[in-house]
Amino acid sequence: MKILKQRILEDGMLLPGNILKVDSFINHMVDPLLFMELAQEFKRIFGDKEIDKIVTMEVSGIAPAFACGVVFEKPVLFAKKTVSKTLGDDVFKTKVHSYTKKTNYDVMISKELLNEGEKVLIIDDFLAKGKALRGLIDLCEQAKVDIEGIGVLIEKSFQGGGKSIKDMGYEVHSLAKIKAFENGEIIFE
Amino acid sequence: MKILKQRILEDGMLLPGNILKVDSFINHMVDPLLFMELAQEFKRIFGDKEIDKIVTMEVSGIAPAFACGVVFEKPVLFAKKTVSKTLGDDVFKTKVHSYTKKTNYDVMISKELLNEGEKVLIIDDFLAKGKALRGLIDLCEQAKVDIEGIGVLIEKSFQGGGKSIKDMGYEVHSLAKIKAFENGEIIFE
Repeated sequence: MKILKQRILEDGMLLPGNILKVDSFINHMVDPLLFMELAQEFKRIFGDKEIDKIVTMEVSGIAPAFACGVVFEKPVLFAKKTVSKTLGDDVFKTKVHSYTKKTNYDVMISKELLNEGEKVLIIDDFLAKGKALRGLIDLCEQAKVDIEGIGVLIEKSFQGGGKSIKDMGYEVHSLAKIKAFENGEIIFE
Repeated sequence: MKILKQRILEDGMLLPGNILKVDSFINHMVDPLLFMELAQEFKRIFGDKEIDKIVTMEVSGIAPAFACGVVFEKPVLFAKKTVSKTLGDDVFKTKVHSYTKKTNYDVMISKELLNEGEKVLIIDDFLAKGKALRGLIDLCEQAKVDIEGIGVLIEKSFQGGGKSIKDMGYEVHSLAKIKAFENGEIIFE
């Protein structure tokens, strides 16, 4: 999607280790009007599907998923990384590895909020090796919901996560696909 | 605000220790259309002010702040609780105590994203003793920005945080103010 690619070129920054820093409009500060346009694009892509819920993972999935929630007029459920008094023990739980943070962490969804047979659209900000998305898919599979589609803002396709998730049989659409970082340049597919 | 109070009465649940569980529409799953209405109410309250940025704290501040960002057409900056490779060291930092999680944690904002003299609106989901909000205020004061107002979805006014922040000289508006929990009932002001 052109506006997202342009914004990545203008405001993104490459850090060592194939990390794309987009803190100024996606991961730390967000541009709500851009996100609403991206959500309209997801509506164009997935609009023919019946969706009951948008599912994402805290933290940086919340804003793009919320924008989709506004456009699809559906609730937005975010998998949680921290135990809280309100969450309780009755949860679907799985483990995710973070490459940027070099740690494993649990992600959880309350069993009360995801019901067998519901049709969900998964939205996330990044897709690299696919660990976070596979965590979300695992939670959805535990809940026996139908994953109608997966929408991602930025995919680093050279890291293989997108292909591996498509190979699992899921429909994945990324609004900006990066095929390489070459000499400090971002090369889109 | 009537629709928020009604929703709290319908879907909120009281847990031991004066904890109000609103996981089904605020803290774990969110209702985007409700949040857009709440953001319109914040626009009605703070609309006469010049605002450059909406500031909030991850995790559950993001959705209400994002909704305000759409309505005010301004960027949304969320203070982060975890260090990441993209955040770097050049941050405003302060410490916050969480009553629900019984821990202290750092919250940080990149110095690149909050600039002296900017006018900000702080948005958060809950105001109880005010520890999280005071953390946000501290970060804003370090950055020397002007806090034009503070908007909160749910204030538990009997815990004193709202009064203490007003006593600091800030304008605080809460869309639902709870003055007591009595015999398992939620009593609004």
